[in-house]
Amino acid sequence: MARKLRMGMIGGGKGAFIGPVHHRAATLDHEADLVAGAFSSDPAKSLASGKALGLDAKRVYGSYREMARAEAERPANERLDFVSIVVPNVAHFDAAKTFLEAGFNVICDKPLTTTLAEAKELRQIARRSKKVFVLTHNYTGYPMVKQARWMVRKGVLGKLNKVVVEYPQGWMTGFITNPNQGIGLWRMDPKVAGGSCCMGDLGTHCENLVRYITGLEIESLCADLGSFVPGNRLEDDGNVLVRYKGGVKGILYASQISAGEENPLKVRIYGLKGGLEWRQEDPSYLWFKDPAGLVVRYSRGNSNLCPDAMKYDRLPWGHPEGFIEAFANLYREAFRAIRAEVAGRKVPAADFPTLDDGVAGMAFLETVLASHASKTKWTKLKR
Amino acid sequence: MARKLRMGMIGGGKGAFIGPVHHRAATLDHEADLVAGAFSSDPAKSLASGKALGLDAKRVYGSYREMARAEAERPANERLDFVSIVVPNVAHFDAAKTFLEAGFNVICDKPLTTTLAEAKELRQIARRSKKVFVLTHNYTGYPMVKQARWMVRKGVLGKLNKVVVEYPQGWMTGFITNPNQGIGLWRMDPKVAGGSCCMGDLGTHCENLVRYITGLEIESLCADLGSFVPGNRLEDDGNVLVRYKGGVKGILYASQISAGEENPLKVRIYGLKGGLEWRQEDPSYLWFKDPAGLVVRYSRGNSNLCPDAMKYDRLPWGHPEGFIEAFANLYREAFRAIRAEVAGRKVPAADFPTLDDGVAGMAFLETVLASHASKTKWTKLKR
Amino acid sequence: MARKLRMGMIGGGKGAFIGPVHHRAATLDHEADLVAGAFSSDPAKSLASGKALGLDAKRVYGSYREMARAEAERPANERLDFVSIVVPNVAHFDAAKTFLEAGFNVICDKPLTTTLAEAKELRQIARRSKKVFVLTHNYTGYPMVKQARWMVRKGVLGKLNKVVVEYPQGWMTGFITNPNQGIGLWRMDPKVAGGSCCMGDLGTHCENLVRYITGLEIESLCADLGSFVPGNRLEDDGNVLVRYKGGVKGILYASQISAGEENPLKVRIYGLKGGLEWRQEDPSYLWFKDPAGLVVRYSRGNSNLCPDAMKYDRLPWGHPEGFIEAFANLYREAFRAIRAEVAGRKVPAADFPTLDDGVAGMAFLETVLASHASKTKWTKLKR
Amino acid sequence: MARKLRMGMIGGGKGAFIGPVHHRAATLDHEADLVAGAFSSDPAKSLASGKALGLDAKRVYGSYREMARAEAERPANERLDFVSIVVPNVAHFDAAKTFLEAGFNVICDKPLTTTLAEAKELRQIARRSKKVFVLTHNYTGYPMVKQARWMVRKGVLGKLNKVVVEYPQGWMTGFITNPNQGIGLWRMDPKVAGGSCCMGDLGTHCENLVRYITGLEIESLCADLGSFVPGNRLEDDGNVLVRYKGGVKGILYASQISAGEENPLKVRIYGLKGGLEWRQEDPSYLWFKDPAGLVVRYSRGNSNLCPDAMKYDRLPWGHPEGFIEAFANLYREAFRAIRAEVAGRKVPAADFPTLDDGVAGMAFLETVLASHASKTKWTKLKR
Repeated sequence: MARKLRMGMIGGGKGAFIGPVHHRAATLDHEADLVAGAFSSDPAKSLASGKALGLDAKRVYGSYREMARAEAERPANERLDFVSIVVPNVAHFDAAKTFLEAGFNVICDKPLTTTLAEAKELRQIARRSKKVFVLTHNYTGYPMVKQARWMVRKGVLGKLNKVVVEYPQGWMTGFITNPNQGIGLWRMDPKVAGGSCCMGDLGTHCENLVRYITGLEIESLCADLGSFVPGNRLEDDGNVLVRYKGGVKGILYASQISAGEENPLKVRIYGLKGGLEWRQEDPSYLWFKDPAGLVVRYSRGNSNLCPDAMKYDRLPWGHPEGFIEAFANLYREAFRAIRAEVAGRKVPAADFPTLDDGVAGMAFLETVLASHASKTKWTKLKR
Repeated sequence: MARKLRMGMIGGGKGAFIGPVHHRAATLDHEADLVAGAFSSDPAKSLASGKALGLDAKRVYGSYREMARAEAERPANERLDFVSIVVPNVAHFDAAKTFLEAGFNVICDKPLTTTLAEAKELRQIARRSKKVFVLTHNYTGYPMVKQARWMVRKGVLGKLNKVVVEYPQGWMTGFITNPNQGIGLWRMDPKVAGGSCCMGDLGTHCENLVRYITGLEIESLCADLGSFVPGNRLEDDGNVLVRYKGGVKGILYASQISAGEENPLKVRIYGLKGGLEWRQEDPSYLWFKDPAGLVVRYSRGNSNLCPDAMKYDRLPWGHPEGFIEAFANLYREAFRAIRAEVAGRKVPAADFPTLDDGVAGMAFLETVLASHASKTKWTKLKR
Repeated sequence: MARKLRMGMIGGGKGAFIGPVHHRAATLDHEADLVAGAFSSDPAKSLASGKALGLDAKRVYGSYREMARAEAERPANERLDFVSIVVPNVAHFDAAKTFLEAGFNVICDKPLTTTLAEAKELRQIARRSKKVFVLTHNYTGYPMVKQARWMVRKGVLGKLNKVVVEYPQGWMTGFITNPNQGIGLWRMDPKVAGGSCCMGDLGTHCENLVRYITGLEIESLCADLGSFVPGNRLEDDGNVLVRYKGGVKGILYASQISAGEENPLKVRIYGLKGGLEWRQEDPSYLWFKDPAGLVVRYSRGNSNLCPDAMKYDRLPWGHPEGFIEAFANLYREAFRAIRAEVAGRKVPAADFPTLDDGVAGMAFLETVLASHASKTKWTKLKR
Repeated sequence: MARKLRMGMIGGGKGAFIGPVHHRAATLDHEADLVAGAFSSDPAKSLASGKALGLDAKRVYGSYREMARAEAERPANERLDFVSIVVPNVAHFDAAKTFLEAGFNVICDKPLTTTLAEAKELRQIARRSKKVFVLTHNYTGYPMVKQARWMVRKGVLGKLNKVVVEYPQGWMTGFITNPNQGIGLWRMDPKVAGGSCCMGDLGTHCENLVRYITGLEIESLCADLGSFVPGNRLEDDGNVLVRYKGGVKGILYASQISAGEENPLKVRIYGLKGGLEWRQEDPSYLWFKDPAGLVVRYSRGNSNLCPDAMKYDRLPWGHPEGFIEAFANLYREAFRAIRAEVAGRKVPAADFPTLDDGVAGMAFLETVLASHASKTKWTKLKR
């Protein structure tokens, strides 16, 4: 085996949700080890987190700037191969910029930034840096999403007509009657989350999932956002009519106040020759619906899938893989690119979301916010 | 048993879909017999249909006006107790008017008319006539829809926040590539269907289902309609953002070009204390989702349901009842009212859709059409 | 339309479950009318039931023998075309014999009789009578069961290897702690139900369903019966290992004490080329499982089904048909045969369970009872 | 964090299925590192496997005996904390014995051994060694299985009446027509697999799952085994009637020739107060069925679960965890025990399958084989 890659983490201290996901996903295939981190802007908290992770205290930092500086000076055989950025949205831009400019490959949580302008600037910075940049729209890592993409791209559905993508969650419902419990959450704070709560967190996943599978480009959209949690200055529900190029119609919606819903991101794609359905809570299956009424279930681990859906299998069929495995598939692809970059080889095309996806996501998000504020029905996609 | 009611039918000749449904629904509980009809405007076809149904040829007519006239002169012991109108949309108004004014109780297919003005006028006519008028928004006949209504009205969900109702069908997809096969259909012909194809046929069911369950009133909406079948002058796909009174947000969509979808009308209702989900293709179950993650399935035939959900049971739990039974539940309620009317008793309140529902449906439909034509985002509900 | 057939009913008085099912099933397609009956052995109760059904009191009887005698003397234009026998098991034999010998076609509930000897004798009586005899193993009336039969018989599964059929119900669980509530039920009374409760009621459906779909013949079996309801002298749970001819292995089980189960009769059939699964609670779908992992759902109402699965459709796809429609499919086939018999034409082969099925069911049931009582593992099928 | 544990692996070389599962499961929570192994009895193959895993070549061995000897001599700060044994069945006994006697904690694949006598002997050896021994009946690691156990043990179901457990797979179906492809498999070779193929591999999981959840003890059973793959000297299908102590009835079956089935291990448990159902292919949900017909779905990640079901969560609800996570839950518990053992502390009670479970599994398996060979219906559980 090639040597294990050295990973650094920005954010993701004790109690965080997504930090440990990145850590497990990065190490699931034993291709990387976490060796450094700035887990919190509070140095004591960062140190405690690093200790709990078994890290050398010297490589645990109270700020990512300090970390970038110090780690950049490490000798080659200790040098980080990449950092994973899992801080709240508003810090993505600067953290990513800092590490790219310090010469590190970057894996970054979504949404990319808080504005389209920042997203474009970051894309420029990354291009100049020639470093690898991966945006963790993790749902594209599911093999059956790759199968869907392959089927659509191969023309199995024929010309597309309609796309419905939905991502209702219910976890903020309780804050409606008990706003005190929720209002401290960074997701509801414009200073930390940026201009959006629900659509930035969930809506961008919807947009990305549709684009990943279909390649469709949004032409214009019409959005209605709602804030149900008292005191929430951002939206916790969003419903969008979409017109894609080529005459395809769409509905996209996300919610945090759909009581009782867990995490059922779902996409349905309809073309001339059939429909496809995929649902994140039951991710091993992809459903194809024949116009004449046959429904065919494809399942992960089978030999009748496309190569992209088969290459990530860690387990045989019927042995459920889940969220972490899908996340790890992004890391596996990222590592292919990072190993090339580290070795000075040409970075291969790889199957992970990029800064182009991040820019598209921010364009979508800014258009949604503008549409919501507008009295005109259709708002053209911002560029 | 009280005597069987005498039923007449307008439309529903050979080859029709909904005529036999009405016939089976009306007779499922052995409360009525079909004894007269104008099954087609072609007298020969009407006669052939009547013969196939075993009717006395004297009571089979080539026009409903002729039928209304002739049947009105029958003696009391032969007189029709009601007629069921199952002609295409554009003829609903005149047929209903004719029979109401001739003194007959009327059961009529949806959508009520082709304009809001007609709908209101028909309501006036019916009021003057003092006859019973039932609009067959048949999906409200499912016991689990009644259970949903009961739960919402009882406050089980708490204050409502969001409603998503969808009705995607795929059967017109084939006409996109073979428009010749489809374009003769009356549903696509404005002269027969009125101003709408998909939203009149399916969208009004969505609107009615939400109103039946929740009682919510639409404040304004934003619609995007599409015509995918070449040559279709009406829409075959429609997507609507809805704002209900009281701050409730909604999505309502219907489609005839969602390839591979059969008839999955589905409604999800979210409140402060939980969510509800019901799906027409699996109609015996109602799903309640607790905000803390428990999901509870209620099923038809159980003793833990509300009285309205229990009173229609014809079979024990686990013995599937379907579309015809739900339809027959409307007829059962209609018969309660009709028997009273026929006997000269006060017509009781009964659980079936009325002309108020029909007017509301046409208001919704006209607003959808107006919104689609408008560049302004929100269009107030027409009245 | 040919004239409506005249139906008589034996049993099925007020409060009965299966009587109204037969009535609705027989009349769903408007091919028959109920005109006479002996609804109870209590004349007053029978009369009340007949009245509630709107029957002429002269044709309502207090005993089926009296009815057979009186109805046999009616003129041809009043004469019953068939009787439906829905009394408890122990009376099937004599009631069927009485009407066959009086010259009536017979539709009879299952299980056919209470002993194999009786079943064989009844078969002889029916043969001599040349009358039509239909045994209502109603689950074979579901279109998707017919599709399964067609696929198996066409070799879609290849040579069969294994069959698992199960029919767990839970409704008697409550009687375990409250035996007083249940012990009066005729199903638990050997004098009324015969030698079996659960296996006669449910197990014979399992046996029949497998034989209908596959044509497999049982070679030997090994049964374990249980009585969980205190005081129940018959079994309320039964588990059977089956060896079919040709080396096919099977499991067959039925239960009335599987708490929380409603009516999920389910069959799974495995061959060299795939597996099939059908479930009564979701009867519109048949699932085919490819050995390489594709799962294909066939659904009622589609144009890709076999002729036998398509010919009974009353509604388009996605409009659920249920238990009554499946039951009515048996009647529809029965009517084809009965009309021929009444007209003196050759009775056509028709798709309904016959006395051969009844004899097979009783052979199965007696073998199950013998096996349970035996210390030897395998008991050969009785003949 | 405490230091990472040092793991050794016996078997699991390149191309193996279960070796990488153990490796990922052991390291998912970053509590252990793989540092030594005897991956194959072919030294070159073992070395290649070790290299591919990034191991120090000095700690890669061509035989487990050599490994046990060499590793036992390592200093404390290098010494293995445990070994994971993932060789075929027949080698479990000697490998486990070797490492226990050399002073190592052992994690071992199931079935424990190939005979009951060996299993008992191994239990004695382990007791003498005072080392931790974990048997990887991994399905007990799923949180919802723990929830089921808790509910049954708490009496939520009341007194149990019936248990149905099934584990049909279809992957060997292809070998029936192409036996050459399959017959080389070690699972079909008595010299490697022991006396059983299907029941040893899958049937013991069934037995263990029922015992884990319910604590029921088998009294006697009646088994019918089948070999469908030509040339397979062991069984590839097995069907068992079970009588548990206390009057509980059961069905247990497993299969490798149920075409089209992936890995749907499923258990249904029925008591006086309700039924429970859990299915491995949809492992995040547990279904409780109320006798009155309510069905309640519990889902992983919720706050309404029992402590044992909650303590393993790595992700919030709706973010699927799968097979590896469940496997890792066994390791997490194992590590609690191993850390105590290594530290010389009292080994705590922990929630993983033990040698008692292994002995019970082998008793079950031997009884199944004896029953199959017997003409008597019931065979008492061997002890």
